[in-house]
Amino acid sequence: MAEAKQLSGAGLRGQSAGQTALCTVGQTGAGLTYRGYDVKDLADNAQFEEVAYLLLYGKLPTQVELDGYKARLKSMRDLPTALKTVLEQIPADAHPMDVMRTGCSMLGNLETEMDFSEQHDKIDRMLAVFPGLINYWYNFTHHGKRIDVNTEADSIAEQFLWTLHGEKPEPLHVEVMHASLILYAEHEFNASTFTARVCASTLSDIHSCVTGAIGSLRGPLHGGANEAAMDMIENWTSPDQAEDAIMGMLARKDKIMGFGHAIYRDSDPRNAIIKEWSKKLSAQVGDTHLYAVSERVEAVMWREKKLFCNADFFHASAYHFMGIPTKLFTPIFVCSRVAGWTAHVMEQRANNRIIRPSADYTGPDNLDWLPIDQRA
Amino acid sequence: MAEAKQLSGAGLRGQSAGQTALCTVGQTGAGLTYRGYDVKDLADNAQFEEVAYLLLYGKLPTQVELDGYKARLKSMRDLPTALKTVLEQIPADAHPMDVMRTGCSMLGNLETEMDFSEQHDKIDRMLAVFPGLINYWYNFTHHGKRIDVNTEADSIAEQFLWTLHGEKPEPLHVEVMHASLILYAEHEFNASTFTARVCASTLSDIHSCVTGAIGSLRGPLHGGANEAAMDMIENWTSPDQAEDAIMGMLARKDKIMGFGHAIYRDSDPRNAIIKEWSKKLSAQVGDTHLYAVSERVEAVMWREKKLFCNADFFHASAYHFMGIPTKLFTPIFVCSRVAGWTAHVMEQRANNRIIRPSADYTGPDNLDWLPIDQRA
Ligand SMILES: CC(C)(COP(=O)(O)OP(=O)(O)OC[C@H]1O[C@@H](n2cnc3c(N)ncnc32)[C@H](O)[C@@H]1OP(=O)(O)O)[C@@H](O)C(=O)NCCC(=O)NCCS
Ligand SMILES: CC(C)(COP(=O)(O)OP(=O)(O)OC[C@H]1O[C@@H](n2cnc3c(N)ncnc32)[C@H](O)[C@@H]1OP(=O)(O)O)[C@@H](O)C(=O)NCCC(=O)NCCS
Repeated sequence: MAEAKQLSGAGLRGQSAGQTALCTVGQTGAGLTYRGYDVKDLADNAQFEEVAYLLLYGKLPTQVELDGYKARLKSMRDLPTALKTVLEQIPADAHPMDVMRTGCSMLGNLETEMDFSEQHDKIDRMLAVFPGLINYWYNFTHHGKRIDVNTEADSIAEQFLWTLHGEKPEPLHVEVMHASLILYAEHEFNASTFTARVCASTLSDIHSCVTGAIGSLRGPLHGGANEAAMDMIENWTSPDQAEDAIMGMLARKDKIMGFGHAIYRDSDPRNAIIKEWSKKLSAQVGDTHLYAVSERVEAVMWREKKLFCNADFFHASAYHFMGIPTKLFTPIFVCSRVAGWTAHVMEQRANNRIIRPSADYTGPDNLDWLPIDQRA
Repeated sequence: MAEAKQLSGAGLRGQSAGQTALCTVGQTGAGLTYRGYDVKDLADNAQFEEVAYLLLYGKLPTQVELDGYKARLKSMRDLPTALKTVLEQIPADAHPMDVMRTGCSMLGNLETEMDFSEQHDKIDRMLAVFPGLINYWYNFTHHGKRIDVNTEADSIAEQFLWTLHGEKPEPLHVEVMHASLILYAEHEFNASTFTARVCASTLSDIHSCVTGAIGSLRGPLHGGANEAAMDMIENWTSPDQAEDAIMGMLARKDKIMGFGHAIYRDSDPRNAIIKEWSKKLSAQVGDTHLYAVSERVEAVMWREKKLFCNADFFHASAYHFMGIPTKLFTPIFVCSRVAGWTAHVMEQRANNRIIRPSADYTGPDNLDWLPIDQRA
């Protein structure tokens, strides 16, 4: 399973852009590891905070360390007043990833990282604040409500659902959110993480690195794929209808969102895990067709194109079953991946050289200056 | 002059990360070209808008095209009310590059690029709006004034100085600003431009690309160097004092900001041009020592380390002579480089593959899951 594709050339595919001790993607054995641990072990057994701690502090926490870390994050949830005012200026039809990007950037104005000795504080603050940040904007603009982000939620997973829905979420949903946040937490030199590292290599501040990464994750070829997958599958009310539609899309050479991967060759190790959770949730909510539609799409894509689901595809139905609006799918990815991004920023800072590649020039050479009255 | 260093390895130095028809850096002949034109010809003869047009629309404009383009940009200067409200939330002691980053990101919420057919509009809007954006915040927080950004300024160069100082600037200063904006407009795959291209490769929107690039430019190893150079040289009141101090810094192996370059080997072609302007301004304002100090620092760095001034070093004194506060130096760089960044984004979009490199793994392998009560 999950060996790396042999590729090179465009998009720096297959070229090494540096070193990392954080993650392997598509190497033999486990398809995905965080600091040497198989992502499946982590998703099956850990809370998200344990994984964030592993990435950011280098080891799995003891019970005392985990309790301390969760209490610390809980104490850091509040939103500054100026940040709330900014969020209230953003219209309801804005793209929620633009809201995350602006919210993170604004936080950097209010609580600037003055030097790198502050990095852990700033990172923990972003982890703590992001779920409430997006749900403050969402509830204000969509329901006219100014929510209180200081909930009693025990974890980031619970905090997201609590601030979204305004009530303590059910335990199954919290469990799914932990697994989901763990699956999304880290993925080596993907485009958004690489963005964060390029930014870090200029010795810029941590909010700049994360703001830039959010912008890259927004793209439909990257984090935006889970929303696009949802927009697609919710059109279909039966597996047969889905199959017909997919066949048509493939004939038209459309890209099917939630399939394929830059590195993995024949499966994404995250898929089986989130698929299992989607199935459980489907049964819980009495779903009649969405899970079946998703399974059929998976089968057809493999049969026709040997393309497999990546992490995003079954995330779509799983989130949907928990009552999460589609437009908030990619912001959840941010609430998780900020752990991976910032672990990479710290790693880049610890052994830095400015990331400044070259390019192959394809334009004209040696043009003579042309005064304006001689131009056509 | 200005041949490329032979390097490889860390920081992707010397590795090609794609193609461009926009710029050559450190190739034989002219040290720096924009679409085949020597930067010296452009800086000596053109207005900034001509160069932005060249980068963004592919050719030098005719007089009619240039007049039309300048009128268009002039008509796009106004700041949305919600953006002003956001700027007013940002404290006076914020980092001005954080203000630019947040302002650009907020603009993306208010005027989102819905698809790539809108790219030219969104780009021209950013070019038009950025000078007023930063000076609105600056005047509000530093002088308690809500300025009107709809000035009679004829150009972006003039608009920057006019919105900063609240009056029509003198012609010499406008001329220097044109040259300065031209010198900063474009520089191939530097770290901030590369950030923009990585973001663009996920097919994200143009404001995400520019927001990310601003964050990277903020770093002291990149755009932040002109401010750092100013902070350094203003400590010295004579060339001898400067020489002593530099010798001490070199002995302590400090980095001297405004010197050295990732690509150029023995000179930066932009330096001679801005140095000449700094000299003219020094004479105009009756400067007694800052220009002399700068020249001495240049001589000592070359004598001791064969390190040469990059574009940033004489920009420091030039901007200072025009009464520009040091903290606004790097935001001016943004007002200019946004032309280069966005030209690269359009080029990336026109022939895209997601930029997703690999990494060399240096961490532990195959760790077994450790239940929490067994951890140390
Ligand atoms: C992830 C992705 C960007 C990887 O890009 P990549 O490394 O450049 O892709 P590949 O080189 O493996 O593509 C190989 C071929 O499969 C096709 N392909 C890849 N993913 C596809 C998809 N989701 N639907 C249809 N065709 C696809 C490509 O178009 C390409 O065909 P071509 O050779 O005829 O051009 C790409 O698979 C994709 O766009 N997927 C959909 C978006 C998505 O789900 N992103 C989330 C990633 S976690
Ligand atoms: C621009 C810069 C980041 C290029 O980085 P780079 O490609 O990694 O630099 P190099 O490989 O050329 O460095 C070669 C040597 O010169 C030294 N050096 C480079 N620039 C220096 C400077 N400004 N002051 C002192 N020493 C410097 C480096 O430390 C290195 O020494 P080492 O081999 O003992 O470690 C670097 O020169 C720098 O930090 N300059 C100061 C910041 C600046 O002005 N940035 C604006 C760039 S337009």
